[in-house]
Amino acid sequence: MVHPGVLPRRVIGELEDVAGPHRVVTDPELLVGSLVDWTGRWKGSSPMMLRPRLTSEVAGHLGVLNHHGVPVQFQGGNTGMVGGSVPMGGEVLVSLRDVAGIEEVDERSGQMVVAAGTTLAEVQQTALQSGWRYPVDLGARDTATIGGTVATNAGGVHVLRDGMTRAQVLGLEAVLADGRIMESLRGLDKDNTGYHLPSLFTGSEGTLGAITRIRLRLLPPHDEEAVAMLGFTGLDAAIEAVGQLRRHTDVQAIEIMLEDVLELVVDHLGVSLPLSRAWPVVLLVEAAGTAGVVDRLASVVHDGSDPAEVVVASDRAGRHRLWAHRDAHSVAISTLGVPTKLDVTVPQGRVAAFIGEVREAAVTDGASQAWIFGHAGDGNLHVNLTGPEPAGLADRILHLVVDAGGSVSAEHGIGRDKVDWLGACRGPGELQVFRMVKDALDPTGRLNPGVLFG
Amino acid sequence: MVHPGVLPRRVIGELEDVAGPHRVVTDPELLVGSLVDWTGRWKGSSPMMLRPRLTSEVAGHLGVLNHHGVPVQFQGGNTGMVGGSVPMGGEVLVSLRDVAGIEEVDERSGQMVVAAGTTLAEVQQTALQSGWRYPVDLGARDTATIGGTVATNAGGVHVLRDGMTRAQVLGLEAVLADGRIMESLRGLDKDNTGYHLPSLFTGSEGTLGAITRIRLRLLPPHDEEAVAMLGFTGLDAAIEAVGQLRRHTDVQAIEIMLEDVLELVVDHLGVSLPLSRAWPVVLLVEAAGTAGVVDRLASVVHDGSDPAEVVVASDRAGRHRLWAHRDAHSVAISTLGVPTKLDVTVPQGRVAAFIGEVREAAVTDGASQAWIFGHAGDGNLHVNLTGPEPAGLADRILHLVVDAGGSVSAEHGIGRDKVDWLGACRGPGELQVFRMVKDALDPTGRLNPGVLFG
Repeated sequence: MVHPGVLPRRVIGELEDVAGPHRVVTDPELLVGSLVDWTGRWKGSSPMMLRPRLTSEVAGHLGVLNHHGVPVQFQGGNTGMVGGSVPMGGEVLVSLRDVAGIEEVDERSGQMVVAAGTTLAEVQQTALQSGWRYPVDLGARDTATIGGTVATNAGGVHVLRDGMTRAQVLGLEAVLADGRIMESLRGLDKDNTGYHLPSLFTGSEGTLGAITRIRLRLLPPHDEEAVAMLGFTGLDAAIEAVGQLRRHTDVQAIEIMLEDVLELVVDHLGVSLPLSRAWPVVLLVEAAGTAGVVDRLASVVHDGSDPAEVVVASDRAGRHRLWAHRDAHSVAISTLGVPTKLDVTVPQGRVAAFIGEVREAAVTDGASQAWIFGHAGDGNLHVNLTGPEPAGLADRILHLVVDAGGSVSAEHGIGRDKVDWLGACRGPGELQVFRMVKDALDPTGRLNPGVLFG
Repeated sequence: MVHPGVLPRRVIGELEDVAGPHRVVTDPELLVGSLVDWTGRWKGSSPMMLRPRLTSEVAGHLGVLNHHGVPVQFQGGNTGMVGGSVPMGGEVLVSLRDVAGIEEVDERSGQMVVAAGTTLAEVQQTALQSGWRYPVDLGARDTATIGGTVATNAGGVHVLRDGMTRAQVLGLEAVLADGRIMESLRGLDKDNTGYHLPSLFTGSEGTLGAITRIRLRLLPPHDEEAVAMLGFTGLDAAIEAVGQLRRHTDVQAIEIMLEDVLELVVDHLGVSLPLSRAWPVVLLVEAAGTAGVVDRLASVVHDGSDPAEVVVASDRAGRHRLWAHRDAHSVAISTLGVPTKLDVTVPQGRVAAFIGEVREAAVTDGASQAWIFGHAGDGNLHVNLTGPEPAGLADRILHLVVDAGGSVSAEHGIGRDKVDWLGACRGPGELQVFRMVKDALDPTGRLNPGVLFG
């Protein structure tokens, strides 16, 4: 493989010929912002960033780089959490942010074709304006590109009912390692003609090709929404309630908050908890659907779970007031210093035990503190470690996840950060097939080297 | 590749050693029922059927066959419609029907682990008994194996809201061409660790390996169901109504019935239509969800569509009475002779025009008749051709599908029947990636030869 640091002038000329010299950025000052991820933990280097605007230009750029054996790092909004978007080995950076725009909205079918560099927020807004809803949502919505969310199979708070990004991807177009275009954009609801390549490329973290366009499934909008905050005297009762609540069609989010983090949150927000007292465990339950959601949520909460206290909000301001407590978790914890963040899933039946084990491990560690919150409805917990030396503790906690049959990456992906842990979550047969697929589509291993496969 | 007709005695001995001689069936009388599909159009031959009971036995059998280079045909319930389950080249038949049983029901998470040979009906019943619902349903439910429905990504009437089988597959275990076991069964709702192999294997039609176990997603049960039959004066109004109806969360099926087929149905059933007169187009709309479905369906029908006449049923007997008309379509048509059956999808916006084009083509043909019905909610139409010589007409109709940007296989798959049409529905880039994946996982092309790739 050619080291891109010594790219001959001739290769640069060929790249400039594809889409013009302005699409080939070599000025270090223009590159610098794209060489570090937003966690600040991954700082890379690259001699060059390509900024194609069209699929044909992506194909042209990748064709030239393939011809000369140059390794490539793809980047969307660069909002990932696991070091998957930064060129750590001096690869040529291919930004897909300018391959942007809503290309088609099919209001009849509830589908949208969108170019990869369009932001998640723009996709959401366009869906709403068209009488539909795009269900994937996450904090970085204004910067994250839809292509990046597809490449990483992004999660979010509504996965419980509406699924990860993969469930929304009906079709996609990608440029392969050698510059060939694979268009699989028709995205009919029912189409049983061959392997479902959109599902394979979704979550492939740029290791199989550059995703350039996507056909998204949209969902019907809701008539009504309601949010309930539920106080529980203990973990077991709360987790039992989660099991009951998640069976109800209306319920689209069940978030878990614990007394210690809520204390930080209340201090940080300068508000008082909407409940009459601090409870050891608080669930935030969001329901949405056809008219009558508020009444149904109230009855579901009282029949299906056994909370010590309940507050329900149906108006917009009241819902936001309840959600604010959950939304402020990350910021409130970060007032204690930069935390080590673990994004894990454990099976439903192991959530309560796992939280206890993590707390015990932190107590044993002595110096560190573990702050836990997350999406209880699907077993996805965010463990934040603060204190002087949380590294060893992080490993012990990830081992607890693996022992519980869980996943060390719930919604953030493997990237470069978790490469060493992939083998703990996936069996040898799965890893062999991962490798077979990777070698088939990227035989020289030039796409996002170091991502997923290490 | 070894022709299995000349399998040396030594190879048979090795196969008998794997799971006992009773698992190696060579008696032609015991084989005969598995050598023809239920449409009767595909009649194959095979020297031997293997009937393993355990994944380890499947692995052992495939390992021996791989070692000797023997080609293989997998079979589940043998209820497929496109010749994908019969050994057409004398392959050794590997039946997965005895790899059967419900292995685990996780009532808390709404998941089930089930062995491939279990029938769809048993999966549905077990889900209901556990307080959940398995949404995939089709006529052959008592014979079709769950493994077969996963291998072919089966559809059905509820795809509109709940998705094809792929949407229900959280994890699976498969035995690869060389006998290696790939276990990807953990099936956490959120697990972003590597490629999603369950999505790749679902719908692979046995060309990548033998699916042995599956972890299925279950859905919450419904509180109420209601069915409406809607009469329309013309196609355009009916299709416009479909576009409105499918936006409503409660609506899980929208079936289209046309006056000519309904006349056959009413004659065959010996009943009178539940509507006051025969309408050119009738929609059957099924809604299900939280309490209040009946009222919501009534208001949706009146606000969102513009039918000339409406009948709504909410009690079980009434719902079945309305559905009976749709269910009887295939049988009523078959009273005219054995029809040529086309299973196609066209984009929502093209449904009305396509139906007109098919009718016109049949009229032009002169001798044939085209009977059309299907799942209007997702654009999946079943075209049945009767008359002396419908073969040329079938091709013309499939060309109309392709021209409309549709799919020549909506829910039945490619099998051997539609191999020549795959290239009309998929672009060159997609076909190349299909081949890359196939060659990577089955480099000698021994699994289901002739299926999908011809």
